[in-house]
Amino acid sequence: MTITNGASDLPETMRVSVLTQPGQLGLEERPVPEPGPNEVLVAIRSVGVCGSDVHYFEHGRIADFVVRSPLVLGHETSGRIVAAGPGVDPGRLGSRVAIEPGTPCGHCTQCKAGRYNLCPDMRFFATPPVDGALAEYVLVRSDLAFDVPDQVSDDAAALLEPLSVGIWATAKAGITAGSTLLIAGAGPIGLVTTQVARARGATTIAVTDIAPHRLAAAERSGATLTLDAREEALADREFDAFIDCSGAPPAIAAGIRALAPAGRAVLVGMGPDNLTIPLGLLQARELTITGTFRYASTWPAAIALAAAGAVDLDALVTRRYGLAEVGDALTSTAREGTIKSVIEPWR
Amino acid sequence: MTITNGASDLPETMRVSVLTQPGQLGLEERPVPEPGPNEVLVAIRSVGVCGSDVHYFEHGRIADFVVRSPLVLGHETSGRIVAAGPGVDPGRLGSRVAIEPGTPCGHCTQCKAGRYNLCPDMRFFATPPVDGALAEYVLVRSDLAFDVPDQVSDDAAALLEPLSVGIWATAKAGITAGSTLLIAGAGPIGLVTTQVARARGATTIAVTDIAPHRLAAAERSGATLTLDAREEALADREFDAFIDCSGAPPAIAAGIRALAPAGRAVLVGMGPDNLTIPLGLLQARELTITGTFRYASTWPAAIALAAAGAVDLDALVTRRYGLAEVGDALTSTAREGTIKSVIEPWR
Amino acid sequence: MTITNGASDLPETMRVSVLTQPGQLGLEERPVPEPGPNEVLVAIRSVGVCGSDVHYFEHGRIADFVVRSPLVLGHETSGRIVAAGPGVDPGRLGSRVAIEPGTPCGHCTQCKAGRYNLCPDMRFFATPPVDGALAEYVLVRSDLAFDVPDQVSDDAAALLEPLSVGIWATAKAGITAGSTLLIAGAGPIGLVTTQVARARGATTIAVTDIAPHRLAAAERSGATLTLDAREEALADREFDAFIDCSGAPPAIAAGIRALAPAGRAVLVGMGPDNLTIPLGLLQARELTITGTFRYASTWPAAIALAAAGAVDLDALVTRRYGLAEVGDALTSTAREGTIKSVIEPWR
Amino acid sequence: MTITNGASDLPETMRVSVLTQPGQLGLEERPVPEPGPNEVLVAIRSVGVCGSDVHYFEHGRIADFVVRSPLVLGHETSGRIVAAGPGVDPGRLGSRVAIEPGTPCGHCTQCKAGRYNLCPDMRFFATPPVDGALAEYVLVRSDLAFDVPDQVSDDAAALLEPLSVGIWATAKAGITAGSTLLIAGAGPIGLVTTQVARARGATTIAVTDIAPHRLAAAERSGATLTLDAREEALADREFDAFIDCSGAPPAIAAGIRALAPAGRAVLVGMGPDNLTIPLGLLQARELTITGTFRYASTWPAAIALAAAGAVDLDALVTRRYGLAEVGDALTSTAREGTIKSVIEPWR
Repeated sequence: MTITNGASDLPETMRVSVLTQPGQLGLEERPVPEPGPNEVLVAIRSVGVCGSDVHYFEHGRIADFVVRSPLVLGHETSGRIVAAGPGVDPGRLGSRVAIEPGTPCGHCTQCKAGRYNLCPDMRFFATPPVDGALAEYVLVRSDLAFDVPDQVSDDAAALLEPLSVGIWATAKAGITAGSTLLIAGAGPIGLVTTQVARARGATTIAVTDIAPHRLAAAERSGATLTLDAREEALADREFDAFIDCSGAPPAIAAGIRALAPAGRAVLVGMGPDNLTIPLGLLQARELTITGTFRYASTWPAAIALAAAGAVDLDALVTRRYGLAEVGDALTSTAREGTIKSVIEPWR
Repeated sequence: MTITNGASDLPETMRVSVLTQPGQLGLEERPVPEPGPNEVLVAIRSVGVCGSDVHYFEHGRIADFVVRSPLVLGHETSGRIVAAGPGVDPGRLGSRVAIEPGTPCGHCTQCKAGRYNLCPDMRFFATPPVDGALAEYVLVRSDLAFDVPDQVSDDAAALLEPLSVGIWATAKAGITAGSTLLIAGAGPIGLVTTQVARARGATTIAVTDIAPHRLAAAERSGATLTLDAREEALADREFDAFIDCSGAPPAIAAGIRALAPAGRAVLVGMGPDNLTIPLGLLQARELTITGTFRYASTWPAAIALAAAGAVDLDALVTRRYGLAEVGDALTSTAREGTIKSVIEPWR
Repeated sequence: MTITNGASDLPETMRVSVLTQPGQLGLEERPVPEPGPNEVLVAIRSVGVCGSDVHYFEHGRIADFVVRSPLVLGHETSGRIVAAGPGVDPGRLGSRVAIEPGTPCGHCTQCKAGRYNLCPDMRFFATPPVDGALAEYVLVRSDLAFDVPDQVSDDAAALLEPLSVGIWATAKAGITAGSTLLIAGAGPIGLVTTQVARARGATTIAVTDIAPHRLAAAERSGATLTLDAREEALADREFDAFIDCSGAPPAIAAGIRALAPAGRAVLVGMGPDNLTIPLGLLQARELTITGTFRYASTWPAAIALAAAGAVDLDALVTRRYGLAEVGDALTSTAREGTIKSVIEPWR
Repeated sequence: MTITNGASDLPETMRVSVLTQPGQLGLEERPVPEPGPNEVLVAIRSVGVCGSDVHYFEHGRIADFVVRSPLVLGHETSGRIVAAGPGVDPGRLGSRVAIEPGTPCGHCTQCKAGRYNLCPDMRFFATPPVDGALAEYVLVRSDLAFDVPDQVSDDAAALLEPLSVGIWATAKAGITAGSTLLIAGAGPIGLVTTQVARARGATTIAVTDIAPHRLAAAERSGATLTLDAREEALADREFDAFIDCSGAPPAIAAGIRALAPAGRAVLVGMGPDNLTIPLGLLQARELTITGTFRYASTWPAAIALAAAGAVDLDALVTRRYGLAEVGDALTSTAREGTIKSVIEPWR
């Protein structure tokens, strides 16, 4: 039995933005889905545009994930619970929520080990063949819709998803009080990583990029030093950790070489299939290199950081769009000055 | 060959405050010592008064450490290098420094494992039979005198020692972005622990004490909630970690009971020899309980946090005293409103 | 649709041993259950008798878990898959399996963090109100029935459950190559802990107990030293870790005092609600004390260790019983010379 | 004041094998050195020949370490204490000892953090300009000469040095009970790594090499599977960890690709300056890659493992040589069938 909020008479259909083929989006009218056991229906308030959305839009694929049938994009999402399936506490109806966009199986070796981001049966929003959140309503498993307090805006609640990437990367990098950190790339992920690093107590946060407006954003996000990636400015510096958010091989190479003994490199940015690393240095300094794939168990901390004002996600939002303007939103990211575009499907 | 700063003609003798027997202090004139290999001579600027100084003053002993001959108190110390022994970079002369007050042997199993705070041959300032820093000059091994930047005042540089206790405790407690933490006791150690927890990204920091002025100081140090320890206000709360800075068994018991599953209790405050813990709860929630003994390798982070303004040590200083007023300083700590008294031997 | 092994025509009913009230057991005929989605039906081969079974039998409760209606005991279990529900690979039919007896929810904070043993919604065999395995058949979620190779006997496959307790405890204790370990209590858990410690490379394994036949079993399990717990034989020794499998406060106190600096105590044995620990020592040596509650993700390693011959579980089996002899099996554990009794419901 | 063993009248001079230029060795008569404070003089019993000795002999350099003046080779060493400097317990005279060949400073950041192997001021045997142990006597800091029990032979005591490399690598790789491990390269380091992995409880240890006699030695050392590195036999396997002891880029690439999600690669073998790694895989599986540089704090565990028979170092010794046969010993390593050559300077 589905429990619905008496106050809201749910419509029978909803508008959905659909990627029909590379570069081509359409607005469709689809039935509002009904929550199954332990599921909630969320009326979407805000959806952040991610680089992966843009990539699917432009190329129709990311690595082995190929768009074979129409796909709904969007996985950085917040909204309000408007219906709940069997097994869900009815008190949750009406709650403002941030959505964790991946549903792990819960039964495999990776899930049981607490590494559910590596679950081979993960169903992740906007990753073929699973639809995303560029719709008026989406279904999600109840435990993946996290209550957010009033201090966290709808946009900020959506941007807890990229924030989670930064939380995960800084955790892998061991960032803590007094850490010295180098970040390559000041796009949205580089910026949230900067914010989380500062919140964790890093006291040196150097950020490199080639775009002045992104370096300026990095400074506003807490970077203690910003550098043009094309210059050899790192020569004499040593860092406890390096987080790559650029995917650019020269930046990764420079970052690894700038690590102090026992330093850690965390590679977040998508880059080429293969990468050259300095083996002798890896050994002489006992460096550690790792990569990240999404995140696990980050929403509680993400919410707490946003609510406490330890990070400022609203500052990243450049412009808001309606569901009919998804194409504009997706192409906006290439525009000078854009940091994060947000779509409001309810408009 | 000792290198001295040409600018400063060092005197032959210096004033030293000496604890001759419990409750009795005297000012003595002693020769200024000469630095041996790898040692520096530091002209002391500021010495914080610690509870252990007060305890030696009042009782003449702490556990197995008994004051058998006159002892110089003081181990929270900053100053300026005025002479250097063989093997020290002459460029260090004139440097403003914070002093780590314990000299480990460097050769034992504990030292080699990076746990030099557990070195059985540690020589620690103001711990019988090793003299402390309530003097115009002290000798210290060069690597234990850390350069501090201009943003860190002389008092703050001295208080990096208690700050280190807070850094160590919060590290053991695993405090990081989004942690929820309960601290019992809002004396100087509780307050620096609060400051470091906030710097590490803890988003809930509840502090309990029985003195309103200390709870007020905890709020200024970043506590998100302060509670009267005598009331049962914790009943419904759960914390990731608990740090005891009170040494009071009822506070420790309440703190352990307030831990969430997999929670960590770190016991810093000196208390009775024996403590009762809830075994069934320890098992059912897989809690971890540990104690701390000083700290290891904390000064670099301490300096960085202070320089970055992530902690505010100057705010803890209640009043300053001269070397002739050590008795007053030591008894001041019991006075309402006193947080941290500081002695300036150069006055 | 349930898939059954064509070879085995499943009966409609099965025999079940039921605890009707403290001290009173009955054999009942119950319907053979049908597997739901992702479930398998296992024909039981071997069920080890655990101290908790004996405790429910004698007292009708363990802490807050009270037997209010008839309960089926038994949670150390192996068998063969004879039917499979929807979603299960049909190839699993006929597999010999070891059963992990707790079903976590997979959705809560603890589950997602990889600590599913702390899941508040855990359904655990033979823990009121969940029935156990003293029956001819039991249902279990498919991923909790682990294939075992031929080298692992039916009894050994059942005893992977207590082995898991030993794996978990030694992991928490950080046992590795060259570790020195003290174990208090040489009952079944102490013995498997000894075996796993040896398999992990511990080179000193001292075991204390008061029963000579248990100390003899400890020697056969790999103890390098056995000691009468009533004598003060530990005085001069220091251990990296201490694992309590006795629940006896004097043994726990002696074990904690025997820890080297930075030593870890892991308390596995059920004891009194409260325990007195030496606070001063905990701090001076920075000891860590933790408790364990079951285990998580241990079956793969348990199977591998048993298959490789790195542990010998068959050596622990003292005697086998049929389903009509459960009462005898439960009271056997108090008898001199008994280590582990096993029930074979298929007899 | 030097304490000497009354029983042994020390000679004034000793024989030393000296590398005068690449490919050229000479026997020199040099004064027996006198131990300074905290030093002991060790009469050498056994010195293992390492690949680095061979490399200095053939090329006169390793990376930035260049032999500019005559150098004494040898750093895998055991012997007997025959004299002791001030500060050393006289009871140590006559002790059989294994020598840790690197003397860290004890004062730098790396040393204090327990990573003394990364100490920039390390003085390491047989690394220019520091002489090694191919002499009748050597001096070493007292705490770096570890007592060994009678069960450990002179050769085995010397080979605790390569064993330490295996202990360090397996620790970095997280090898524990039930681990599955792939090792590339079955030279001496691959073999001791195999032995330690087995001692830590690894249940799958696959070893690849191209030489049948080395693969046979791997089997004797505990490999559960040996594979010809030139064949594509790893295709379907997944390992928790990979340790490279080959330095061969194709073997490293194959090993990294064979890692399970969250797998760890530890690169021990010296290889080319640069290495290509699969970035996409590193991210999709969150792999970790690290390198090792020597070891830290491994001798106690190494001694305990050898004494317990958990490893068998004597089995690695192929042939023994006198001090006049060092050239033969150094060239022997290239000969089919040679695993480890040992030099006995006392002959």
